[in-house]
Amino acid sequence: MLLLHRAVVLRLQQACRLKSIPSRIYIQACSTNDSFRPQYPSLTFSGDNSSTRGWKVMGTLLGLGAVLAYQDHRCKAAQESTRIYTKEEVSSHTSPETGIWVTLGSEVFDVTEFVDLHPGGPSKLMLAAGGPLEPFWALYAVHNQSHVRELLAQYKIGELNPEDKVAPTVETSDPYADDPVRHPALKVNSQRPFNAEPPPELLTENYITPNPIFFTRNHLPVPNLDPDTYRLHIVGAPGGQSLSLSLDDLHNFPKYEITVTLQCAGNRRSEMTQVKEVKGLEWRTGAISTARWAGARLCDVLAQAGHQLCETEAHVCFEGLDSDPTGTAYGASIPLARAMDPEAEVLLAYEMNGQPLPRDHGFPVRVVVPGVVGARHVKWLGRVSVQPEESYSHWQRRDYKGFSPSVDWDTVDFDSAPSIQELPVQSAITEPRDGETVESGEVTIKGYAWSGGGRAVIRVDVSLDGGLTWQVAKLDGEEQRPRKAWAWRLWQLQAPVPAGQKELNIVCKAVDDGYNVQPDTVAPIWNLRGVLSNAWHRVHVFVAP
Amino acid sequence: MLLLHRAVVLRLQQACRLKSIPSRIYIQACSTNDSFRPQYPSLTFSGDNSSTRGWKVMGTLLGLGAVLAYQDHRCKAAQESTRIYTKEEVSSHTSPETGIWVTLGSEVFDVTEFVDLHPGGPSKLMLAAGGPLEPFWALYAVHNQSHVRELLAQYKIGELNPEDKVAPTVETSDPYADDPVRHPALKVNSQRPFNAEPPPELLTENYITPNPIFFTRNHLPVPNLDPDTYRLHIVGAPGGQSLSLSLDDLHNFPKYEITVTLQCAGNRRSEMTQVKEVKGLEWRTGAISTARWAGARLCDVLAQAGHQLCETEAHVCFEGLDSDPTGTAYGASIPLARAMDPEAEVLLAYEMNGQPLPRDHGFPVRVVVPGVVGARHVKWLGRVSVQPEESYSHWQRRDYKGFSPSVDWDTVDFDSAPSIQELPVQSAITEPRDGETVESGEVTIKGYAWSGGGRAVIRVDVSLDGGLTWQVAKLDGEEQRPRKAWAWRLWQLQAPVPAGQKELNIVCKAVDDGYNVQPDTVAPIWNLRGVLSNAWHRVHVFVAP
Repeated sequence: MLLLHRAVVLRLQQACRLKSIPSRIYIQACSTNDSFRPQYPSLTFSGDNSSTRGWKVMGTLLGLGAVLAYQDHRCKAAQESTRIYTKEEVSSHTSPETGIWVTLGSEVFDVTEFVDLHPGGPSKLMLAAGGPLEPFWALYAVHNQSHVRELLAQYKIGELNPEDKVAPTVETSDPYADDPVRHPALKVNSQRPFNAEPPPELLTENYITPNPIFFTRNHLPVPNLDPDTYRLHIVGAPGGQSLSLSLDDLHNFPKYEITVTLQCAGNRRSEMTQVKEVKGLEWRTGAISTARWAGARLCDVLAQAGHQLCETEAHVCFEGLDSDPTGTAYGASIPLARAMDPEAEVLLAYEMNGQPLPRDHGFPVRVVVPGVVGARHVKWLGRVSVQPEESYSHWQRRDYKGFSPSVDWDTVDFDSAPSIQELPVQSAITEPRDGETVESGEVTIKGYAWSGGGRAVIRVDVSLDGGLTWQVAKLDGEEQRPRKAWAWRLWQLQAPVPAGQKELNIVCKAVDDGYNVQPDTVAPIWNLRGVLSNAWHRVHVFVAP
Repeated sequence: MLLLHRAVVLRLQQACRLKSIPSRIYIQACSTNDSFRPQYPSLTFSGDNSSTRGWKVMGTLLGLGAVLAYQDHRCKAAQESTRIYTKEEVSSHTSPETGIWVTLGSEVFDVTEFVDLHPGGPSKLMLAAGGPLEPFWALYAVHNQSHVRELLAQYKIGELNPEDKVAPTVETSDPYADDPVRHPALKVNSQRPFNAEPPPELLTENYITPNPIFFTRNHLPVPNLDPDTYRLHIVGAPGGQSLSLSLDDLHNFPKYEITVTLQCAGNRRSEMTQVKEVKGLEWRTGAISTARWAGARLCDVLAQAGHQLCETEAHVCFEGLDSDPTGTAYGASIPLARAMDPEAEVLLAYEMNGQPLPRDHGFPVRVVVPGVVGARHVKWLGRVSVQPEESYSHWQRRDYKGFSPSVDWDTVDFDSAPSIQELPVQSAITEPRDGETVESGEVTIKGYAWSGGGRAVIRVDVSLDGGLTWQVAKLDGEEQRPRKAWAWRLWQLQAPVPAGQKELNIVCKAVDDGYNVQPDTVAPIWNLRGVLSNAWHRVHVFVAP
């Protein structure tokens, strides 16, 4: 969900001077502490302590709409007197005609004007119409923030009859309770949904990332699927036949195994945040990992369902079996041309490093789209169809796109940018770490480098002086196939520490075989979602005397 | 040809202190005037004044080898006394066994040790063995520089018998005399071979560049080919048949017409030169142009010769009919996978903007490889073959590659970098021009943007304040086909000039659909050949009071 930029919130607060709003809400809105804790003591949130870290999740559903609604609505709430409503009264307000009401704790809100502006889509908010928000906010932890609550406060129309207050322990059953147990080494950016990255020094320890520390980017709770009853539905082409494939059926297609690096669009977002606040998980350098994936080729499966390349542009839409309370699955799409190209090696993968997929990585079947942003590698795959347009999924159309640094949440037009598919060239330093003290004499610098679209990394330049002079790092890892360099190169450089140097500004930058390079600095590629963060990576270290 | 870096030359001069070398040579080596004028008044160079501009051409044949030879040889020449040799004596020294001698003007040189180090290849230098250098230097005007002459001076062994001096007017017949007449608007970077670019304000006047001002990058004299007797030789696959195709035969293949932008690898090299000297033509922003090309698809022609995609990597080698005195043609290659891919749309083009190809652009047939560096679009095409390795052409293997800024002519290893094929994302400002005075009120900024590999330009950001803040330019020109965005986008931005501003630092940068971006600055992508110059383009203008 898109979170409101704090500056906007503060500006609007100043404009409104909401004196009649309960002071605790005003305090919340002014708070600069982003760590959310439930503000309504009467509510029992089922999350554990770690759920307080979940607030930064999926910053994609509020935003422009929210700002507009906020401005439209302005100080209307301040004019309302406190009235008492019964639960029954609330439950009769579920349409534009009657008004659309919801409750949170003891408060009642008329969100009729806001429904169409809900950037997650009216349908999601309508699920809660006439009832409590808690069950939905438990799923989308991003709502649990002071400025979201402040936004909601503008629509308050009264209080719930004390006898009708929600029994939240019933309603907020934890949809994440069945998530798998994770490796303790993972650095967790969000528990619900679970998002975590390996620490950098583990990341480049192995060319193939061990499954337990492979970075995990979930958008929803992890479904618990029975491999015996699992079916993958492939919508057939006109004149072809639809398929309902069991795991055994998938195994009967020729098996392909390839090494592919997956990278989240938000990898290294935390560096963008340092320039200016962005909305999204605070990934450091670890939202990237590499595995051996095995499965059936998507092109073979699509061909069996009668699909073939056509002259007009088309897209292969994937739906996951991880769904939200509306039943809406995670979804994404890739161009049909890529899907049908045997050289693109798109897999319906059922193995990861020789094992069945771990649950966090899509058990029993996920898509692997080599060279393409992680968001298209749909996990817990349930359905594949060919459509004339891209997936209408929120994550395809209203997220995972890049914009000019000049575009903010007030001006963004998601239709103006293409969905991210191939990613630009990337590299990062994993050793030494920022702020570390290194021995004098010689320093060993390690890192990874990768590029999208099968473009091989051909060189990594490393600087010890902030980019004034450069040395060429040694590339390790597997040789890359032409046009199919789906996996990263690890690299290292042993370099003498210049005598008398007390600090080093270590920088790396990679070049791919299209001779694309990384930009020097972050600010000119800053974008409001904090994606595509691939400026030179820099670490500052001290030299031991 | 690779020219020695002056710093190296000066360092070696100091090391050697060549006191016995004629003073005029020492003076030449110290000269900082790069404009070459013949230093031997007794020689009549057949070039006109414009040939003096040709010296920077093709900086690819001297270099590391030359430096090594220079160092090996050190002060040997200084130890030789001046001896007199007859022309007959010289002509008997044409092999390693006898020694390899050449003359220049009245001087005799023993270049035995240098032949294998000649970066243009021993064969080219051996052509002159036993005789005068002048006919060859007339072709490769790059030799006509003080430091090349100084290098040669190290090998001097004596003087030619005065009666045997070369009659240069006979030997230096001008191989460029038959070159076509060119449009006067072209900015000439080199007359021999002819290399010229349109002025920026004409470049973006039209989406399709008119043929007469399409940038021209020749490596050799323009051949004058008879369309009636022209034959294109396609070497057949094993089990297939070789083809000898007339122009009519080519017309009998299905005709395809596509809009493709060609860009020289050295476009915008002059900006790299401002950071540090590089070797190559001083292209400004105009080594890029766009035309409608029509012809047969290479894949169709190759298929007729029995070729098909194979599992192992292979390359399609092109040879031009423009050849040097050894009979060596200009040559280049592309991967077979690209050549055989109908989607890559590689053409054997015989039309340019609806006309037969102009002579400067490859009449009667050239290769057009959409999305790929200009150097592979071989003109005056004579021969096509499929080989397990890349073309052994100098221009494929010892040129048109990118290196780290840390690599210089002493350390370069051409085998360590891949030949440039696809080019990185590029953009430049064509209006206003650097140093111009613009009206206050509003400024109109125009330019072009393009990316290699069929990646579409999706956005151009423009800054008036050196890159602190950005505005999004309006993209003009044709819509781009997915994965086949072979042609540039022109763009423009009308922006208010901030009140009171006396100067503007205008900057542009483009983004392609792989979300590749241009690097901020030139120095970190500097390379010794000055290729791949795609940093943000910057112009500084004054605002009229």
